[in-house]
Amino acid sequence: MLTFGIRYRIRLLEGESLDRKVQGIALEQSVELPDNVISDEIRETIVGKADDATLLDDGRYELVIRYPLANAAPEIVQFLNVLFGNVSLTKGVEVVDVEWDHLESLFLGPAFGIEGVRTLLGIPTRPLSCTALKPMGFRSDELAELAYQFALGGIDLIKDDHGLADQRYAPFEERVLTITNAVERANQETGRKSVYLPNITSGIQDLMYRMDFAVENGCGGVLLAPNLSGLEAMHVLAHEVGGIPIMAHPAFSGSFVTSADQGFSPAFLYGGMYRALGADCSIYPNAGGRFSFSLQECREINESCRNVHQPFKATFPTPGGGVKWEDIPKWAALYGNDTVFLMGGSLYQHPNGIRAAAEAVRTSLESVI
Amino acid sequence: MLTFGIRYRIRLLEGESLDRKVQGIALEQSVELPDNVISDEIRETIVGKADDATLLDDGRYELVIRYPLANAAPEIVQFLNVLFGNVSLTKGVEVVDVEWDHLESLFLGPAFGIEGVRTLLGIPTRPLSCTALKPMGFRSDELAELAYQFALGGIDLIKDDHGLADQRYAPFEERVLTITNAVERANQETGRKSVYLPNITSGIQDLMYRMDFAVENGCGGVLLAPNLSGLEAMHVLAHEVGGIPIMAHPAFSGSFVTSADQGFSPAFLYGGMYRALGADCSIYPNAGGRFSFSLQECREINESCRNVHQPFKATFPTPGGGVKWEDIPKWAALYGNDTVFLMGGSLYQHPNGIRAAAEAVRTSLESVI
Repeated sequence: MLTFGIRYRIRLLEGESLDRKVQGIALEQSVELPDNVISDEIRETIVGKADDATLLDDGRYELVIRYPLANAAPEIVQFLNVLFGNVSLTKGVEVVDVEWDHLESLFLGPAFGIEGVRTLLGIPTRPLSCTALKPMGFRSDELAELAYQFALGGIDLIKDDHGLADQRYAPFEERVLTITNAVERANQETGRKSVYLPNITSGIQDLMYRMDFAVENGCGGVLLAPNLSGLEAMHVLAHEVGGIPIMAHPAFSGSFVTSADQGFSPAFLYGGMYRALGADCSIYPNAGGRFSFSLQECREINESCRNVHQPFKATFPTPGGGVKWEDIPKWAALYGNDTVFLMGGSLYQHPNGIRAAAEAVRTSLESVI
Repeated sequence: MLTFGIRYRIRLLEGESLDRKVQGIALEQSVELPDNVISDEIRETIVGKADDATLLDDGRYELVIRYPLANAAPEIVQFLNVLFGNVSLTKGVEVVDVEWDHLESLFLGPAFGIEGVRTLLGIPTRPLSCTALKPMGFRSDELAELAYQFALGGIDLIKDDHGLADQRYAPFEERVLTITNAVERANQETGRKSVYLPNITSGIQDLMYRMDFAVENGCGGVLLAPNLSGLEAMHVLAHEVGGIPIMAHPAFSGSFVTSADQGFSPAFLYGGMYRALGADCSIYPNAGGRFSFSLQECREINESCRNVHQPFKATFPTPGGGVKWEDIPKWAALYGNDTVFLMGGSLYQHPNGIRAAAEAVRTSLESVI
């Protein structure tokens, strides 16, 4: 019987025993019935089976429960239900990893990955830069002027702020056409290649259309917040539509990762999960920025985006916030060259304007060996 | 300028000041830029505006921030981003309410509501009963036999376990046809009306089809886990497809509600939010069951499902777990008659079988005045 493993870290609450809590998860995430009312056959073929647990330094237990692949197949949404459906309502249960190599029938990973994105941009080894067009409230032509300046200065990936949707001040189609044009104009002036990634985060009736529109109009990629549009939707976009890379944004995902004991580890969500679901770049809040991940957590996300244990192309970790352009070499030494550095507010605050800010970023990037 | 309010409860972490934290939220959830780089016009027309805060007994602060409706319009997914996009990554921020009456251009609420469901079933005043077909691993004919017995005994709403998707042991279409048939057969024998609600939770390429299939084949409603299929997708199903009621299941939603200080209050998610998004019935883990909501939290969910402050039809609160059939009158007195009692495992454990269990439930329900 084909199975796949989910690795949990479990904290016992007052009055709980490890065996009962683990058995409870294995039942809840499969048959959802007490053990005494299921048949031997169902117990053997459907219920999850737990390995031995290890006691961790923080008092939690770590263990793998293996579930029959047939419980999840053939659907990603049902996999997510087995992964963290009802057990999401339980305190003290964190998912930290999945055995992806048994799930290749469900997940294809990134369509481009780090190497594919580098090839599209023609940048073989150095880290990449990324910025966001904002604020919400600007007209399309105002955003396009920003994009033009960023591209003249040499930012590699110029994305929409994830709050730009289809508001009347900058409607989706008009915005995409105007900004694509502006970036192309800058590229012709500089001889370099910056690309524009519009935000396509939207509902089930618009999502495929917006992806198609971005592909057909020559965008270099798209921005998508999978926890808003649907995690499975990202995989559909990557592999049923495809054509250009997807940069994943963590909006609406925070509750899964902000509790120390519950939900997903940041490395699992932004590395393992987003990667399996097809993110070519995965944005996460960097240490030292205005959100709260530690340096250690960020390095674990990077590792999970790129490690060779996962049977997929590697995802570009894309730390956002907390990076100043003059510190890029330092961060590249910490995080490795296969990193996209997303800089937003700090560029808008540059005393000499955003083209100068972008040039400072490019100079700093090009100094990375 | 049209605005809508979001009500937050905020805990200050070490070193934080209330003013800066509130201002940070208002900026983050709109322009995503520091205040010193935005124009007066953008500040006036785009950035959220905070009301005065109230200090709560638990040391948190409660306050409303109002955002321009244009920031969210015309899309539910972008509303969710304004509601809890980046701020989801911040500790100590809980959303407890929304001013829905300003959002009627975006949200339509339940298509049927409590009165509509009662009319479909022909049950004007008493509480309703619901059970789940399981375990995963049963064939369609085995599940249909269970449904037949439940219907003979008189369970009102017979739903799939939310883990039944399109697995090979009980494929979706075969399962729907077989079980619909079995419930209809029982109805003809009893002269009563039980209805079957298949689980349609699935990805963006299957969801509409499964809803259509359920409608066309005479199902009495559908089961959907909106946090798995996409919150906005529920609204599309309710109002773009429609035809039969939607019962919402909380799978995969737990991380939003299990932290005391972060995410959504249970009443907001399972009452306010699911109701705005079109849930006719909203399942939540009942007090005393195997999950962890308090009686007070459950009563707040009920209130939020039914209160007349929200400009939508009322949603049937559907507590699951922790209810024994002999205690239904007690629970009905606590929760009110406009409640669906979801009983699963306890019915499967009845010594005289599930038809007898269902009859006990019906007798107990009919004793409620």
